[in-house]
Amino acid sequence: MMKTLVAPGVWTIRFGEPESVTPISLQEIPADVSALNQLPAAKLPFDTDTIQFATSKRGCVVEIPMDSAEQIYGFGLQLKSLNQTGKKRTIRVNSDPTADTGDSHAPVPFYASTAGYGVLIDTTRYALVNVGSHVKVGTKNVNSSSTVGATGTSEIYKPRELSGKRVIIDIPTARGVDVYIFAGPDLRSAVQRYNLFSGGGCLPPMWGLGVWYRAFGSHDQATALQMAQEFRAEKMPIDVFGLEPGWQSKAYACSFQWETQRFPSPPKFIAEMRQMGFELNLWEHVFVHPTSPMYESLKPQAGDYEVWGGIIPDLTQAASRRTFAGHHDEHLISQGIGGFKLDECDSSDFTPWYWSFPEATQFPSGLDGEQMHSILGLQYQRTLYEVHRKHNRRTYSAVRASHALAAPYPYVLYSDLYDHRDFVRGVCTMGFGGLLWTPEVREGGTVEGLIRRIQSTVMSPQALINAWYIKSPPWHHVEIDKNNLGEKMSNWQEVQDQVRSIFELRMRLIPYLYAAFARYRSEGLPPFRAMAMDWPGDANTHKLDDQYMMGDSILVAPVFAEQASRKIYLPAGEWFDFHTHQRHIGGQTIDYPAELSVIPMFVKSGTILPLADPVQHVTRDTVFELTCLIFGENPQATTLWEDDGETFDFERGDYNLVKIEADRMSRTGSFNGERYRVREWQRLTEK
Amino acid sequence: MMKTLVAPGVWTIRFGEPESVTPISLQEIPADVSALNQLPAAKLPFDTDTIQFATSKRGCVVEIPMDSAEQIYGFGLQLKSLNQTGKKRTIRVNSDPTADTGDSHAPVPFYASTAGYGVLIDTTRYALVNVGSHVKVGTKNVNSSSTVGATGTSEIYKPRELSGKRVIIDIPTARGVDVYIFAGPDLRSAVQRYNLFSGGGCLPPMWGLGVWYRAFGSHDQATALQMAQEFRAEKMPIDVFGLEPGWQSKAYACSFQWETQRFPSPPKFIAEMRQMGFELNLWEHVFVHPTSPMYESLKPQAGDYEVWGGIIPDLTQAASRRTFAGHHDEHLISQGIGGFKLDECDSSDFTPWYWSFPEATQFPSGLDGEQMHSILGLQYQRTLYEVHRKHNRRTYSAVRASHALAAPYPYVLYSDLYDHRDFVRGVCTMGFGGLLWTPEVREGGTVEGLIRRIQSTVMSPQALINAWYIKSPPWHHVEIDKNNLGEKMSNWQEVQDQVRSIFELRMRLIPYLYAAFARYRSEGLPPFRAMAMDWPGDANTHKLDDQYMMGDSILVAPVFAEQASRKIYLPAGEWFDFHTHQRHIGGQTIDYPAELSVIPMFVKSGTILPLADPVQHVTRDTVFELTCLIFGENPQATTLWEDDGETFDFERGDYNLVKIEADRMSRTGSFNGERYRVREWQRLTEK
Repeated sequence: MMKTLVAPGVWTIRFGEPESVTPISLQEIPADVSALNQLPAAKLPFDTDTIQFATSKRGCVVEIPMDSAEQIYGFGLQLKSLNQTGKKRTIRVNSDPTADTGDSHAPVPFYASTAGYGVLIDTTRYALVNVGSHVKVGTKNVNSSSTVGATGTSEIYKPRELSGKRVIIDIPTARGVDVYIFAGPDLRSAVQRYNLFSGGGCLPPMWGLGVWYRAFGSHDQATALQMAQEFRAEKMPIDVFGLEPGWQSKAYACSFQWETQRFPSPPKFIAEMRQMGFELNLWEHVFVHPTSPMYESLKPQAGDYEVWGGIIPDLTQAASRRTFAGHHDEHLISQGIGGFKLDECDSSDFTPWYWSFPEATQFPSGLDGEQMHSILGLQYQRTLYEVHRKHNRRTYSAVRASHALAAPYPYVLYSDLYDHRDFVRGVCTMGFGGLLWTPEVREGGTVEGLIRRIQSTVMSPQALINAWYIKSPPWHHVEIDKNNLGEKMSNWQEVQDQVRSIFELRMRLIPYLYAAFARYRSEGLPPFRAMAMDWPGDANTHKLDDQYMMGDSILVAPVFAEQASRKIYLPAGEWFDFHTHQRHIGGQTIDYPAELSVIPMFVKSGTILPLADPVQHVTRDTVFELTCLIFGENPQATTLWEDDGETFDFERGDYNLVKIEADRMSRTGSFNGERYRVREWQRLTEK
Repeated sequence: MMKTLVAPGVWTIRFGEPESVTPISLQEIPADVSALNQLPAAKLPFDTDTIQFATSKRGCVVEIPMDSAEQIYGFGLQLKSLNQTGKKRTIRVNSDPTADTGDSHAPVPFYASTAGYGVLIDTTRYALVNVGSHVKVGTKNVNSSSTVGATGTSEIYKPRELSGKRVIIDIPTARGVDVYIFAGPDLRSAVQRYNLFSGGGCLPPMWGLGVWYRAFGSHDQATALQMAQEFRAEKMPIDVFGLEPGWQSKAYACSFQWETQRFPSPPKFIAEMRQMGFELNLWEHVFVHPTSPMYESLKPQAGDYEVWGGIIPDLTQAASRRTFAGHHDEHLISQGIGGFKLDECDSSDFTPWYWSFPEATQFPSGLDGEQMHSILGLQYQRTLYEVHRKHNRRTYSAVRASHALAAPYPYVLYSDLYDHRDFVRGVCTMGFGGLLWTPEVREGGTVEGLIRRIQSTVMSPQALINAWYIKSPPWHHVEIDKNNLGEKMSNWQEVQDQVRSIFELRMRLIPYLYAAFARYRSEGLPPFRAMAMDWPGDANTHKLDDQYMMGDSILVAPVFAEQASRKIYLPAGEWFDFHTHQRHIGGQTIDYPAELSVIPMFVKSGTILPLADPVQHVTRDTVFELTCLIFGENPQATTLWEDDGETFDFERGDYNLVKIEADRMSRTGSFNGERYRVREWQRLTEK
């Protein structure tokens, strides 16, 4: 068992004979070694010689020791639980993970520990991971006394602390695996190291951080333009307008061509939408309809089963990627399309059962369906991302599946499952896997429900209203049937005003969010983080899955419909209510009354928070007028990131770091432009 | 590919190199060849040469053709769906199958088709089966036009008919598999053939068909006796009294020994309970606590992981079985215990995550955890069943997992999941897999809920009230908290009267049910059957999963709480309302008003239905006083089965067939006793 240092603080250990197709084998963006070198040096908190490995008929098993106090996070986007300690995880792409089994749109065979390290299992197989749930026979248990005469569920369902714990990673099929170990020194650094090893986090275009609206599926060119015009007339700040399947001549499977009855003149449509300041995002999925011009070219490398009457292109193969990318380049991206919604790439075949392909699918390249399920979402992202790069125009897009090493790809996960509580939990868990996620809004059911959901989505990586089956904006009518009949609520304008004001809050935060993403890119620090990532030593944070940090300074605690109040835990230190500026001493849980207009947010003492005057949408020339709020004593400088907001020129150094101190702003860098102007500083007096 | 005839109408085809441990390799009860010979001769409806086989890195794949019109049933107990056509099934033991994925307490790699055949895949692996959900690339689809511009979920979620269908069976790990094909000529005969090939259905002791009551977990000897006495005083017909974990000195894991504080004198307790006419059933699970006298003996063959601090005995190994059986024999069965509730053998490790063992578990015998999960429930049944046989005393017991070839074992499946609709669906699906299932009753929530659930459980293989966490009988108070405080509803006596009358209905049906089980044993005909099993040619039955046949003559259509009425489909022919005797012409769906006191039941025209005077419990000497109801014209003879009701002596021919015609009763056979006396015949005039 030889441990090899592959990057600063990253080691790999090879066990047995790994498979040829793995997340690392498919990695295209190299580790950001210089950024890794900026992280504090760290040792591993355990002896890697204690890792055990065995092969079996079923595949192979790796066992990694952990101690009783360790808390484990990760395994990708987990909508059902944050803290993975003591659980069994199935690392399997699944569009409908109805129970807390690990199944996910974006399962990632990476976990990180409060003991200050991370582990990546380099496999595309549906690994089963027991996270300290079991001990070997003969191990002494901390609590070996069993329940006598249990008469209620609480007695039986109470979990127990075990000693002799280990993470058991059971990998089917493979005869070996490479294990990557990421040093900390702490949980957060271990995650940063994983993200930098993946190539660093993505930097979205600035427009991507505005508000997204996905419109009714049956729109045509005229009605889509009309809706866009109404958004501008009503001064609803929206940056991205999304078209659903109806733009295509065939969908389910896809032709990837405009439906010319509905959209007789795509270039004109694109130009008019962009003139109004909308970036266009097009829905698609990967399954290729026989009428698509790509079909014959993709077929020789496609899987042997059909999905929706289409073929499954093999995007691990250069020829298929060229075809797929080339079509998108020529017909869509070079025409001005800003991004895509990559749907149905997340194994929707558990239920409903025919929306994806069997694991037994064979690809001429030698991949099987299980492997393809794991990597499909990420290969899809890679294929289209390179076209956007070629055009030197950043995208921010949507995708319904992802996997390991995804941090550099500007694709945000979403889901049909639509449980608000789960959706907020996703914001807490995504950061442990190099992923982005949006708790998208469709229907609200009630005005309260709509407002609460919109409040959550604007405090996420992508502020998305996905009204694909709702004719008018949901703030016209929250009941879908009535909405689709064209009815409006009697108080729709009041509701629209409320929604606008929430959107405007998002727009005020764009400079702050953009800076957080810049740190994601350069330091691998997730822009949204579970409380446990920043305070791993505080046991009160270990299970907090309904509040999170947005950037370094703002704690967000969304409220759910029908909550009269909610508990919010403030870690040690001082915190200021974002809305009232009231000061709170940390290290305590407070009860926060739930006013409908308020999304509870707290700002760390010492923060200089730059808030922009809200714009309707972001352009290359937008200059943000900032009001800098100074919270508490000893304010620390805030750094904003300044560039054209659209291209990859920043990679050549074409950007500025804008330092905002308590009384002045200064910039360093070579970007020849100014995006930020401070109108005023406001020192908030203690309340 | 050689097809071998292994029993009348049963062929096996070997593909590749099968694994050594399979359902067939573990089969102990031989096929009932003489009964198989009684079934009508049949050919296979398809050419087995069209079956395709391939191995891959992942394992192997078998593809079996099916045509577009075929409807497929089976894959064991399926709580989420009856008709399996078009679905993807995971053949995996799982205690919490929250979605319609195939996962089940008792998944069975057997399916049967309306085209008149059955297929058993002889594997213990977690096979994935795509049941005609996908076609190969290049196959012509019946409906290849795809949805353009879908704007609503109904358009997208609509399933499509495909041609070129196949059942794709994807078996991990295995390099080959034996496929068993069962001829029909029809769906029902194919199922019968599978059951007879399994050894024939089980014949429960007569007492097993009475009512079961599992009592509060913290009972002790005195309180259990007191409750039993109260049941007799209140004239509640109950045959089986179940004790939950509290009877054991250690539970979770189990010691399999009496807790002597609670039960100071087990022999006296057993004697007193049996004297009152109660059979005793003891809860246990398979995981063995270190304090159990079996522990050291089982340990050398146990799995390498602990569960609940106990070991997992390997019940495929003779030495472990001897130990496990021997302990149960000496300390429990020979002391008069009538049966067991075999809990937690159903992979409760998906959620919660530590209630079972990892798939990576290794057993010294060479089995791995995946294989053991599949067979654990059935090996557990086999191990204890042989002790009951040794004592020549039949058992009827409970178990939470099963698998292929289970028909001869008198163990009834149950579940914690507790959705009433799903529970009734289970009664419809169990018959396709050689399984028995009870929609057990715990809490009712409301009086209506309690009554509706009790109505369902008495129309199932096992009439079970499982009040393990409810102190007094649920008919004292339906709200658990109040019940556990000793409160009674103001109308509890009225509710108890209602419950008693439902129990008495069960008791009236015992001779009829016993005869149905006798046919299960001798002809492999499931005593409870989905409508589609009896009318596979009637498309109206293909998805009916809330009504079923009980025996040959009674159609049962349970009502769910809050239903004001329900639809009931009556197949072609004439039917009589069991309660009102009203005549209905079949071939139509009727709307049945839901009176709380009534469980809708219909009797086939031509039936002579023997109803017994209800007894409080069944003994070896019970003689049933029958009223024979004659429904409709041309009454057909009914055959009852008569024996001691308790032993295996019937296997030596010690039984009678009691023929009841419209005006007389006659018996053939060598059983020296009379269990049935007809008090009267009632010819029901048409209404």
